[in-house]
Amino acid sequence: MSYAYDATRNEHLPEAVAFPKDSGQVAEILKLATAHGFAVTPRGAGSGMSGGAIAARQGLVLVMTRFNRIVRIDADNFIGVVQPGVVTGEFQRAVAGHGLFYPPDPSSADFSTLGGNLAECAGGPRAVKYGVTRDYVLGLEVVLPTGEIIKTGVQTVKGVVGYDLTRLIVGSEGTLGVITEMTLRLRTQPQTVETLSAGFVKMADAARAVAAILQSGIVPRALEYMDKNAIFCVKNYLEGGVPENREAMLLIEADGSPGQTVEAVQGIEKVLVEHGARDVHVARDADAAAGLWRARKAISPALYTYGPHKINEDIVVPRSRLPEMVEKIRELGEKTGLTMVSFGHAGDGNIHFNIMLDKNEPAQLLSARQAVDEIFDFTLALGGTISGEHGVGLAKAPYMQKEISDAALGLMKRIKAAFDPAGILNPGKMRL
Amino acid sequence: MSYAYDATRNEHLPEAVAFPKDSGQVAEILKLATAHGFAVTPRGAGSGMSGGAIAARQGLVLVMTRFNRIVRIDADNFIGVVQPGVVTGEFQRAVAGHGLFYPPDPSSADFSTLGGNLAECAGGPRAVKYGVTRDYVLGLEVVLPTGEIIKTGVQTVKGVVGYDLTRLIVGSEGTLGVITEMTLRLRTQPQTVETLSAGFVKMADAARAVAAILQSGIVPRALEYMDKNAIFCVKNYLEGGVPENREAMLLIEADGSPGQTVEAVQGIEKVLVEHGARDVHVARDADAAAGLWRARKAISPALYTYGPHKINEDIVVPRSRLPEMVEKIRELGEKTGLTMVSFGHAGDGNIHFNIMLDKNEPAQLLSARQAVDEIFDFTLALGGTISGEHGVGLAKAPYMQKEISDAALGLMKRIKAAFDPAGILNPGKMRL
Ligand SMILES: Cc1cc2nc3c(=O)[nH]c(=O)nc-3n(C[C@H](O)[C@H](O)[C@H](O)COP(=O)(O)OP(=O)(O)OC[C@H]3O[C@@H](n4cnc5c(N)ncnc54)[C@H](O)[C@@H]3O)c2cc1C
Ligand SMILES: Cc1cc2nc3c(=O)[nH]c(=O)nc-3n(C[C@H](O)[C@H](O)[C@H](O)COP(=O)(O)OP(=O)(O)OC[C@H]3O[C@@H](n4cnc5c(N)ncnc54)[C@H](O)[C@@H]3O)c2cc1C
Repeated sequence: MSYAYDATRNEHLPEAVAFPKDSGQVAEILKLATAHGFAVTPRGAGSGMSGGAIAARQGLVLVMTRFNRIVRIDADNFIGVVQPGVVTGEFQRAVAGHGLFYPPDPSSADFSTLGGNLAECAGGPRAVKYGVTRDYVLGLEVVLPTGEIIKTGVQTVKGVVGYDLTRLIVGSEGTLGVITEMTLRLRTQPQTVETLSAGFVKMADAARAVAAILQSGIVPRALEYMDKNAIFCVKNYLEGGVPENREAMLLIEADGSPGQTVEAVQGIEKVLVEHGARDVHVARDADAAAGLWRARKAISPALYTYGPHKINEDIVVPRSRLPEMVEKIRELGEKTGLTMVSFGHAGDGNIHFNIMLDKNEPAQLLSARQAVDEIFDFTLALGGTISGEHGVGLAKAPYMQKEISDAALGLMKRIKAAFDPAGILNPGKMRL
Repeated sequence: MSYAYDATRNEHLPEAVAFPKDSGQVAEILKLATAHGFAVTPRGAGSGMSGGAIAARQGLVLVMTRFNRIVRIDADNFIGVVQPGVVTGEFQRAVAGHGLFYPPDPSSADFSTLGGNLAECAGGPRAVKYGVTRDYVLGLEVVLPTGEIIKTGVQTVKGVVGYDLTRLIVGSEGTLGVITEMTLRLRTQPQTVETLSAGFVKMADAARAVAAILQSGIVPRALEYMDKNAIFCVKNYLEGGVPENREAMLLIEADGSPGQTVEAVQGIEKVLVEHGARDVHVARDADAAAGLWRARKAISPALYTYGPHKINEDIVVPRSRLPEMVEKIRELGEKTGLTMVSFGHAGDGNIHFNIMLDKNEPAQLLSARQAVDEIFDFTLALGGTISGEHGVGLAKAPYMQKEISDAALGLMKRIKAAFDPAGILNPGKMRL
């Protein structure tokens, strides 16, 4: 049943699936749900990494893909008004047609919806320069669980009237309201983009290079890394291959005017070489750059070469603690004997950390779970967070209280009740 | 009584004033207030423009100025941990000592506190490039009205675990909780800054120049304007004076690496000249630039040359509608016979619009109020908002329902109750 699972490969069969096409229909459904107490789970493309779109308490899945209209692109005011079912990449291309730029670019942009991006506050490689989805949301139309339709926020770049409902709903994982329209902030398209790659014999050198690039004042628009195992997964995508002894690879982009971009690329190359990078390449054209990104985006699906199942995490640590975290992951790999793969948004300290295993082997499952526990504790001890962009959903709910105190969780529950008195919207998520 | 008023010149005498020095003391006070039902109004420097720090329902004023410690500046991770009583400018200088940059720069930076900035989500000239206060807040320590002390958010650039309490509290004008510590995001100091000024014979040309600069892809770090009356107020600050027939002046800053800055300045000069700017000057050194900013910052206090009282608004319109708004203000000035002065953050469409009057003249007061009403309706009709950065507080509360629907306001009230069941924190503000 196609609306039962998401990218977590978790599965719950809903009792019904609805495909509303306007906010009035959404309101009718939610009113009924509040009156009769059945669960409603909003769903975009189902590409979520934490089980947010899964009908954990059965009930109805509300598929938002018919909300697929780009209402308005306002090139004078750098604003787009759009429905939540529009696919991220489609919107990016549409605004590019007006010389505009929608920076948030989760690696799932080819299929994820903007509604799912907002509900998760999706990140992606460009966050290091341009920020996350939250930073591009100006206003919303939202249907509350009671069926009331409200507008939040503004259509302008600034606005402070009343509580910031917009940003409360962004990242609320479909538990507070159903987004039916959004006003997004756009930028002008950067004139030039250059893409670099670099290999490192020592992971720690790569981590130090990341810090040094940012310290130098250059703000690349992407600063990604992959570890040895990640490189191995996707080496067939990498033109010319990768030398055997590379512990890490960085993938870096700079953008701006031609002058700015050249200046940034030269600065980045200098820092890379100073930090022991071995194979520093600037992609010769857009195709070569696209090839590098194809490799980067292939990691997540390609991981299954290491085992039938994966547990994937999305931790963030303060950038300067990356070397410690990388070392910790290496140790845990040795201790458990399981393959651990890490890659992600190094510039933000955001690590997608994967444990490959066969879940049917109880011993593997147990030691994988212990490793996750240890990684989360270590992450928090370093001043980090257990999720940078994938959200809590079902998958991280058991760990939420490691990070959120009882008092804060109590407050979140009261906020949830303020929106959803009958508790019908996406219940069973986030411990709320 | 010094803790009775703020920059609105409104005044309410509180029954008591407390100067707590740690979050434990704040918690004790709030617990007592919740138990006994007395009002508590948090206060920073009292420079607010909407009456937020005024004890509208008497009770206790909680002066946060003893929370004046910069706890930690982490130059590796571009983060500052700081107490809310620290003055904005002091913090900016402290981080600059580490080569870092805290961009939010309300014109009140010399005296406003960071706590007040967060509570109002302060903007300022640099928002056009760097965003508003909200965009620099990663995490908070907050004392809830019940006396519970919670941590919100993260210490890293990303994090999505649980509801976004951080950004709900930012901009909540001291009605949801008392901020006792904050983790702020920093950037590297730009290497170079250049400041330009330009005069225009026609206001509409200035507005078109603003739009054209942004369309060109240049993102200046400030893009301010002042109208004829504002120029007149501060002309003594402007070296060499201003020719008689100037309807508008723009004040523009560009920053970045030396190369980037030169490129931006040249691009801006070109657009200015193409749009009929008359006196395009690049400030020859930091002192000359500081002089221009002194003039800009002097407008607000200097307005009283036009009358004993002012009604000052903080509207935002989509940038492309600036010419219409400017024309509307001119018409209203003619119609009412009152002096209207406007200036502000043109790059964001954020207009500080002032009506000068003698409030003891009932006819003046009446027509000023009617003008405000008309301006607000027109602002909203253009797709704007009635406050870009000054907040609602007392001053805008009567107008809040022009912008916020009953359903949204009802939700805000339920959120308020989720934080503050006894309704003791800053009551009487924002219609909540
Ligand atoms: C290969 C791959 C790469 C990925 N890369 C990234 C990445 O780089 N960065 C990143 O952040 N994420 C990434 N993700 C995760 C995922 O793509 C994002 O979380 C995305 O935002 C989910 O969008 P979706 O439309 O698939 O939402 P779904 O999975 O369908 O739903 C996600 C959540 O949003 C809610 N929701 C959906 N629509 C609405 C609506 N209209 N109103 C209210 N709530 C709604 C759902 O209830 C659910 O809680 C990746 C996933 C995959 C499979
Ligand atoms: C000349 C002048 C120029 C200005 N320019 C700008 C500008 O460019 N941009 C701009 O945005 N604003 C501007 N302002 C408005 C004002 O300076 C800002 O709103 C500032 O953020 C207020 O800070 P404060 O410390 O004075 O706060 P106060 O006025 O003391 O309080 C403001 C609000 O914050 C709350 N508060 C204070 N501390 C806390 C805390 N620790 N926890 C919870 N709530 C708290 C109060 O309850 C109140 O609601 C200007 C004001 C003046 C007088």
